[in-house]
Amino acid sequence: MKTLITAAANAAGAFGGTSPQQRRTLLYDCAAALESAATDVVATTAHESGLGEQRLRGELDRTTGQLRLLGDFVASGRHLPGIESPEAAPGGADIRMTSVPIGVVAVFAASNFPLAFGVAGGDTAAALAAGCPVVVKAHPAQPRTSAMIGELLRESLPEGVFGLIEGDNATSIALVTDPHVRAVGFTGSLAGGRAMMDAAAARPDPIPVYAEMGSLNPIFVLPDAATVGNWATMLAGAVTASAGQLCTKPGLIVVPDSPAGAALESAIAAGIAAAAADHPMLTEGMADGHDRWREQAEHLPAATVTAGQPGQGTTPFCVHVTDAQLSDELLNEHFGPTTVICRAAVDRYCDIAATVDGSLTATVLGTEVDHQDAAPLVTVLSRRAGRLVWNGVPTGVAVCDAMLHGGPWPATSAPLTTSVGTAAIQRFRRPVAVQGLPAALAEAVTVG
Amino acid sequence: MKTLITAAANAAGAFGGTSPQQRRTLLYDCAAALESAATDVVATTAHESGLGEQRLRGELDRTTGQLRLLGDFVASGRHLPGIESPEAAPGGADIRMTSVPIGVVAVFAASNFPLAFGVAGGDTAAALAAGCPVVVKAHPAQPRTSAMIGELLRESLPEGVFGLIEGDNATSIALVTDPHVRAVGFTGSLAGGRAMMDAAAARPDPIPVYAEMGSLNPIFVLPDAATVGNWATMLAGAVTASAGQLCTKPGLIVVPDSPAGAALESAIAAGIAAAAADHPMLTEGMADGHDRWREQAEHLPAATVTAGQPGQGTTPFCVHVTDAQLSDELLNEHFGPTTVICRAAVDRYCDIAATVDGSLTATVLGTEVDHQDAAPLVTVLSRRAGRLVWNGVPTGVAVCDAMLHGGPWPATSAPLTTSVGTAAIQRFRRPVAVQGLPAALAEAVTVG
Repeated sequence: MKTLITAAANAAGAFGGTSPQQRRTLLYDCAAALESAATDVVATTAHESGLGEQRLRGELDRTTGQLRLLGDFVASGRHLPGIESPEAAPGGADIRMTSVPIGVVAVFAASNFPLAFGVAGGDTAAALAAGCPVVVKAHPAQPRTSAMIGELLRESLPEGVFGLIEGDNATSIALVTDPHVRAVGFTGSLAGGRAMMDAAAARPDPIPVYAEMGSLNPIFVLPDAATVGNWATMLAGAVTASAGQLCTKPGLIVVPDSPAGAALESAIAAGIAAAAADHPMLTEGMADGHDRWREQAEHLPAATVTAGQPGQGTTPFCVHVTDAQLSDELLNEHFGPTTVICRAAVDRYCDIAATVDGSLTATVLGTEVDHQDAAPLVTVLSRRAGRLVWNGVPTGVAVCDAMLHGGPWPATSAPLTTSVGTAAIQRFRRPVAVQGLPAALAEAVTVG
Repeated sequence: MKTLITAAANAAGAFGGTSPQQRRTLLYDCAAALESAATDVVATTAHESGLGEQRLRGELDRTTGQLRLLGDFVASGRHLPGIESPEAAPGGADIRMTSVPIGVVAVFAASNFPLAFGVAGGDTAAALAAGCPVVVKAHPAQPRTSAMIGELLRESLPEGVFGLIEGDNATSIALVTDPHVRAVGFTGSLAGGRAMMDAAAARPDPIPVYAEMGSLNPIFVLPDAATVGNWATMLAGAVTASAGQLCTKPGLIVVPDSPAGAALESAIAAGIAAAAADHPMLTEGMADGHDRWREQAEHLPAATVTAGQPGQGTTPFCVHVTDAQLSDELLNEHFGPTTVICRAAVDRYCDIAATVDGSLTATVLGTEVDHQDAAPLVTVLSRRAGRLVWNGVPTGVAVCDAMLHGGPWPATSAPLTTSVGTAAIQRFRRPVAVQGLPAALAEAVTVG
């Protein structure tokens, strides 16, 4: 590991000094390499993750599209602040804000998106686009996938710019505390993210950890919305897609305490019950966790569990409660094809929203009739989530300029930043003010 | 303290919901209140800090100007990201990035700028402009100044939006670890900043600490620049202004190993020797530290100390070395009217630059003849400082859009952010992506 990190540190100066256009070419090369090996990559990933080939083909497209989008973004110069304050300095010199790459970035690959959040995923793409060498720690559940993609990246990039390591928790800590490492990207559990944060905070020189962790992703269905549309099918789909192993899976669906709400609740539960367990959970530990949560939920006072069978690991199920029964256990993230459906009077919605922890997303379903109820709810939820969705489902995170995939603790460790979209590059660039520098020397800073 | 923090938390919703125009009015009210009490404020501050009245009048102007500038900035809407990704969401909904205030901010006032970085200083102004209530801990060296300014702010702002506390280190930790506090602004020592960072990182829900701490602020004089201009006077002034108690005071001046360099070194030393100790150090502890450093420097091998007399607390002095003698002690920040002048061959400049710790500023003095030597040096320094100054002195931090007053560890804890200028507001706003939200509900998020 030390050798790879040292190689990355040695490469940081030259790679940080590449032009954005050169980095665009390199990112396109990485994308092309992944595509040239697509059949092998998808087959290997399907074998190790249990995810379906079609889903993985789509995820590979997302991964290569992301590499190219971020390459295009920096090549256009839009990653630079470009803020000018003419004659602002004492004495009248111009001040200009630009930015520089921060140095070696450590990335912890996630298992639930083995490609798009994996070795060549969003954190890696953003760091490379920013001009930072990357050392990725492979997810232990997908060693062959990781090695295959790692080799493709290594061959596509200048020497030292990309390194892949494997190992246990001690390896993770050693990576985060290595003096050469300047920032950490992490996608995974709260416990794992917190361990990396604690290690980084205890360094002689603390470094930022951009950790994306658990998220409840609450959905609030307003009274009129409950009477219309195809929401039951969409919501059941969002809960059960990829066996409920998405970071944006809705873990709480609040429906109105009305006949329409009751009908919607039944329809969502029926949709979830009808969903096939089309692939196993990513790891045995996750399958066990899903079963344990079912057992625990069945013993909660006044909660009802519907659908599926206990002890089958990937069987979808629903937990039904009223808002009076909402407890901490019900408001925690539970990975897997399961959700909590909560019946509540609409005048209780804001209080429920104020109770949930920080989340990656919060969703409101409403019609024009619902706008009056929606306004205060939208205000409360916008203070607790990184993305606010209106009349949609939170799954399906668009890779675009306006995306904010983040959110208040415990959803992430760095709620002012995003791990998806072009703004993700900014986590790995440091702004610098340049005062009075002649044009002839500007490139000495902005190179990279 | 608990009462004030609770009041701030209770005020957060309504204050975060004010329009930027309303906040501009409030910030203007704060500025007017400070100006109406200017004579009393300056007299009290001069008495407690020992700083001169003229300097404090200027600092008060800076403080009120900053409040108004940040108010104008948010009133113009420029604090909002305003990034649009039309039809980017699955299903074709628009995604728009906006931002919301993060909640209660704790501010630790600095002693060296009792006004501009004090109770109504940059952190307070930025947090209020962002829509966040503020609880300030007064600097113990300036209790009357703090109380007077705190009262002016409290009277100018809605109930609960501003609170002032006093106390010891335990009070500081209690403030940083209070569940209602969402971010911390700190200006002070490395030890103090680190203690706040450690406390914040150990919370059940870690929060960001924006700490500005020590900084060396190295200056590199290139060979041709050493032969021209008025640099000796400007550099001696930057070292001795405000008794060397500025965060941007140059602590290392590298001059060429040439006759012109030797002449410049003598002239800087003479300028520093001639500088009057026009006011005492801010605290007895700082005066003692200044004396201790002189004594320590006199015992360093091959270092020479010139100017002043030992044991006088505020007497300016210079430490002279060659680059072979540069050691950790010489590369640490030493508060007070003192600097290290280092003679070196120009081909050693990049190595020296690579040795210095992260700094708020780095400065290069050069003519057109020097450009070839300057280019690689500028690259190295831009990776180690928050602001790069060409042919100027780093003291005098302009409050403007392009300012970056920050820098890599140990200069600050959050090198991707600034504590001066309009960009400081972003430390207290959290970006939110809004997906598919109808225009009629947009205000429910963007209010504030």
